[in-house]
Amino acid sequence: MSTPIRIGIVGYGNLGRGVEQAISLNDDLQLVGVFTRRDPGSVQTLSPNTSVHALADLDGTHADIDVLVLCGGSRDDLPRQSPELAQRFSIVDSYDNHAHIPEHFEAVDAAARAGATTAIISTGWDPGLFSLNRLLGEAILPHGHTYTFWGKGLSQGHSDAIRRVPGVAAGVQYTLPAADAIERVRAGENPELSARERHTRECFVVLEPGADPEVVRTQIVTMPDYFEPYDTTVHFITAEELAANHQGMPHGGFVIRSGNSSTDQQQVIEFGLKLDSNPEFTASVLVAYARAAARMAAAVDHGAKTLFDVAPGLLSPRSAAQLRADLL
Amino acid sequence: MSTPIRIGIVGYGNLGRGVEQAISLNDDLQLVGVFTRRDPGSVQTLSPNTSVHALADLDGTHADIDVLVLCGGSRDDLPRQSPELAQRFSIVDSYDNHAHIPEHFEAVDAAARAGATTAIISTGWDPGLFSLNRLLGEAILPHGHTYTFWGKGLSQGHSDAIRRVPGVAAGVQYTLPAADAIERVRAGENPELSARERHTRECFVVLEPGADPEVVRTQIVTMPDYFEPYDTTVHFITAEELAANHQGMPHGGFVIRSGNSSTDQQQVIEFGLKLDSNPEFTASVLVAYARAAARMAAAVDHGAKTLFDVAPGLLSPRSAAQLRADLL
Repeated sequence: MSTPIRIGIVGYGNLGRGVEQAISLNDDLQLVGVFTRRDPGSVQTLSPNTSVHALADLDGTHADIDVLVLCGGSRDDLPRQSPELAQRFSIVDSYDNHAHIPEHFEAVDAAARAGATTAIISTGWDPGLFSLNRLLGEAILPHGHTYTFWGKGLSQGHSDAIRRVPGVAAGVQYTLPAADAIERVRAGENPELSARERHTRECFVVLEPGADPEVVRTQIVTMPDYFEPYDTTVHFITAEELAANHQGMPHGGFVIRSGNSSTDQQQVIEFGLKLDSNPEFTASVLVAYARAAARMAAAVDHGAKTLFDVAPGLLSPRSAAQLRADLL
Repeated sequence: MSTPIRIGIVGYGNLGRGVEQAISLNDDLQLVGVFTRRDPGSVQTLSPNTSVHALADLDGTHADIDVLVLCGGSRDDLPRQSPELAQRFSIVDSYDNHAHIPEHFEAVDAAARAGATTAIISTGWDPGLFSLNRLLGEAILPHGHTYTFWGKGLSQGHSDAIRRVPGVAAGVQYTLPAADAIERVRAGENPELSARERHTRECFVVLEPGADPEVVRTQIVTMPDYFEPYDTTVHFITAEELAANHQGMPHGGFVIRSGNSSTDQQQVIEFGLKLDSNPEFTASVLVAYARAAARMAAAVDHGAKTLFDVAPGLLSPRSAAQLRADLL
C-alpha cells in the first residue's frame, strides 16, 4: 500500500462533515484534521478521533498536508480563502457562483502558480458533474440542445424566503423538475421552455398561531423572483410533521442533451442524480477531486484547474492498468 | 479561426460513414479522405467531395493527416491495424473486445511510443462513455454497486444467430433492459440480478414459405448462450414489415451507480443513452476523441491512452476560458 494522501478540511458545516465522512470511506486518503475559524473546542466532529485546529494553525502544519478541501460558502468564504490558501497548499473548492467563476479562476490561478500548487475549483455536481455532462453532450452532439433540470431538491434560499413571510413559523421549499417538460426533452422535441414550464415549487409551511393560511399562501405564491415565475403549491403542516418528514437535504436533477447526428437520426444523452443528501454527495465529489489534485500536484501540473482539466482516471484510487482491465 | 484538424478515415462501413457525417458537423475538423482496402472506385461516400484512396496510399500522405479514425472491426481489423498505424499516425479506435483491452493497449502503446504518436483506444459508448460513468460512480461513491443495462438495441450477433435457424428467411433481434430490474436498481435496492432478470430478448422473424412457426420459435428460444439464458419473445412478421420497421440500428442503455455516502444516505448516479443510430453515435464519440488525440499529440503527450486519460476539455472545440464561462 502506498503512502496515503493527507487531507485537511477547512470549515466544518454540513459540507465539512460530509468530507470527514467521505474520507473515512476511502482507504488511500487520510484526514489530518479540521481547521476552523470557530473555537476548536466548540466543534463536535463525527469521529472523536478527528482533531480540530484553529485556522491560523495551518501555517505550522504545512508540511503534513497534501490537499486542503475548502468547505466554506461561495459568497463570503471562498472568494477570499481559495486564493489565499492556494498560495501555500493544493486545494479543492466547490465555488458555485456560476457568473463569477472566471474571475475566481483567475485569482486562484495566479495564487497557485505563484505557490507551485494545484487548485481544482468549482467541483461538486452543479457546477461539477452536471458541467462535465453539458460539455460531453455538446462536444459529441454539436447539433443539439442541452437542458438542465434540478430537483427534487431542498432549496435553502427559497426556504429562507418562506420563513420571512409574516405568519410563517417554519417551512421548507422543494424545487421539482416538471415531469412533462422532461418527457418532451427525452422524446427529442427540443422544446423552448419558460421557467414556469421547467420547474415547479412545493412549500411545506407551519403557521404561527392565528395566522390566516390564505393570506400566507398568497404572499408566498406572489413573491417576485422567488415564487411568482413558477407554479407554486403550498401545504400547511404541523411542526411535528415538519420535524418528522422534512429534515433531510435531498437534491438531484438531470442534464439532457438531445441532438441529431444526421437528419433522421436523433440521439439522447441523459445524466441524472437522485441524492438523499446534497451536502454528503457534494463532499464525495470534492474528495475524489482532492485525490486528483494531490496527483496533479505530484506531477508538477500546477495552477488553477476545473473538472474539464482533470483526466477521469486521476479520480480513482486504482491504477490505470486496473481501470483498463476492470472498468473499460 | 485556427488551422483545422485533418482527419483520415480508415475503413468505410457503417462506422466510417458515421465518421464522415460527424466530421461535417464540426467546423474545426477537416476530412482528408477515406482509406480503404477495397477498390477505391467502388466506394460510394456520403459526400461526393470525399476523396477515396487505397489504404496503401497512406504512406505518401503522412504529412497531411493529424489523426486517423480507425473504423474497422474489433475481431479482424483493429488488433493488427491499430498497432501498425500508431507507429506512424496518431489514431483513435473503437476496440470493443473488453477481455482483450489490456493486451491491445500494450501493443498500441509500444507502437505509439516508438512512433511518437498519440493513440486513444476503445472509445465509443461501451467501451467508452459507459466506462467513464462506471469509473466516476465508483470513485465518487466507493461503497455501492454499479449496474450496466443495454438496450433497447439491435444486436448484430444475435440477429445473425436467428438467421442461421432453418426456416428463417430474415430477422432481427433486439436486446431490452428489464424495466422492473432498472426500477429496483434506481430505488437503491442493490439487487443481485441474473442474466434473465437483467435483459430480455425480442425477435422479429420472417419465415420461409412452409416453415412451422412453433418449430422455429422453439429452436430460437432454446439456443444455448444466445437465447436460452433469457426470456425471449419471437414475433413472426412479413418481409414488408421487416423492411418498413426494422431497418434502423437503434441502441442505448444505462449505467447506474447506487451507493451510500453514510448509513442512511443513499445516492444514485444514472447515465443513459437513447440512440436512433448506434454507428452514428459511436462515430460522434470517436470524432470528439480524435480532436483530443490531435491536441495531446501536439502537446507531446504520446503513447496509448483511453478515455480515462483524456481531460474532458480536450473534447470540445471551445477554449478552456470559454468552457469555464459558459458550461461550468
